[in-house]
Amino acid sequence: MTLDVTVQMTRAQAWFQELRDRICREMEILEHEYAPEEAGTFKRTQWDRPGGGGGVMSMLHGRLFEKAGVHCSTVYGEFSPEFRKQMPGADDDPRFWASGISLIVHPWNPNVPAVHMNTRFVVTSKWWFGGGADLTPVLDRRRTQDDADSQVFHAAMAKACHGHSVADYAKFKKWCDDYFYLPHRGEPRGIGGIFFDYQNSGSWEADFAFVQDVGLAFLEVYPALVRRNMNLKWTDSDREEQLVRRGRYVEFNLLYDRGTLFGLKTGGNVESILSSMPPSVKWP
Amino acid sequence: MTLDVTVQMTRAQAWFQELRDRICREMEILEHEYAPEEAGTFKRTQWDRPGGGGGVMSMLHGRLFEKAGVHCSTVYGEFSPEFRKQMPGADDDPRFWASGISLIVHPWNPNVPAVHMNTRFVVTSKWWFGGGADLTPVLDRRRTQDDADSQVFHAAMAKACHGHSVADYAKFKKWCDDYFYLPHRGEPRGIGGIFFDYQNSGSWEADFAFVQDVGLAFLEVYPALVRRNMNLKWTDSDREEQLVRRGRYVEFNLLYDRGTLFGLKTGGNVESILSSMPPSVKWP
Repeated sequence: MTLDVTVQMTRAQAWFQELRDRICREMEILEHEYAPEEAGTFKRTQWDRPGGGGGVMSMLHGRLFEKAGVHCSTVYGEFSPEFRKQMPGADDDPRFWASGISLIVHPWNPNVPAVHMNTRFVVTSKWWFGGGADLTPVLDRRRTQDDADSQVFHAAMAKACHGHSVADYAKFKKWCDDYFYLPHRGEPRGIGGIFFDYQNSGSWEADFAFVQDVGLAFLEVYPALVRRNMNLKWTDSDREEQLVRRGRYVEFNLLYDRGTLFGLKTGGNVESILSSMPPSVKWP
Repeated sequence: MTLDVTVQMTRAQAWFQELRDRICREMEILEHEYAPEEAGTFKRTQWDRPGGGGGVMSMLHGRLFEKAGVHCSTVYGEFSPEFRKQMPGADDDPRFWASGISLIVHPWNPNVPAVHMNTRFVVTSKWWFGGGADLTPVLDRRRTQDDADSQVFHAAMAKACHGHSVADYAKFKKWCDDYFYLPHRGEPRGIGGIFFDYQNSGSWEADFAFVQDVGLAFLEVYPALVRRNMNLKWTDSDREEQLVRRGRYVEFNLLYDRGTLFGLKTGGNVESILSSMPPSVKWP
């Protein structure tokens, strides 16, 4: 790598880990509010990547959150010939370094939406940020743009973008809608959010500040959505609908998700990559 | 299509439907033996393919079989430019015709293995048969080559091949092991069976007779395997192991299975294609 972004790499990695710690703490507080006597806590597992680097999985199986994973990883090495052509700046020099946080939450209560958030910093002979956050209410009657949860979530993502001239909210929102779509079903996965990639405005500081605000926006909005829904009653039929809807999540991740397919094909940590799979699913 | 295989097309399609009827009848008999008062029966649903042709899904949700699908379809039309290069004989003339039977069974009792069987006849400017059958015992202690079920199943497939000089059992068995493998897990899906494709020995009669025997071998061996296992007791932990193992089945079908990916990308019938998904699955 010809760029000297060593300081930026250190700062990005430290931020992703700090954000991870803050998110895990918030989620454990939520667990405790919901089930003081039986609150779930995160268990951490470290893994090494054979080609260089590794990560830490943080998994929670609780009473409020059926399964939640908050993962940090920092990996480096050389892209295989197949990937050199696909990755910006890797044509002549196959070396790469990438660090990020990736999170997925599958709550028990079908009224509480599932959520996904990810931000990452990638360095080849170029550098860029990528990531986003998107919400998946699992009940048809709640998975609408009119639902209060959808509006609150979109507002939070819009606010995270609007504070930064380097962030194009309209573009990132559409990118999210385009990306989290299941062509074979003719259905969006959830209600959207934001998605961005190859983010390099020329100012690392400006891009980093935006990426940090995406994380902070998530940290504020998701616990708020959980609190307003976690004590709502649900029926067996709601649970059934949730389990079937989770099947769409599986279909998306295994058929289309670039991160999942990239990870599995480049010898990533299978347990970590597939920890996004819902805990319990039905295809009736 | 320059070939005149009209009679063969009719005979193949009629056979697949007859085989379907016989398999469904056997499975309903098994349901009745297991739960005379509450035996599940097959429900048939017809579907049309926008580009030409269609099929009939036969689904059973019973007491012995948690979910079983036995599907016949006969479809025709023109391959998209993308597929013309991949399919033998479609380079100059994109027209195709294909008929087949496809079956998958997910039993309740974890001692009863899941199974998959498929045979098909495809016509472009060339013609060929494809298909196979493979067994997936869902308990680790039963998913071994030494298990009596595995030996009986392999023997049945070997016998189906050995009666036909056009069938190469050793090749078809290895093809099955190579195909039903999950590289990201470093695991085979089940214990194997046979798999073949582009089967055209020059004698349609000889190839058809072999394909019929694969179906008949399945029709004999699977009910025998069900009967020897269906009354065995199982524990909650066996059921849990079954649900987790079914996750591997989902991973295989959505990440690697050619038929699934081909169907979803060519506008096939989503309900029919994804009816192979297990009814209930866990990724704990």
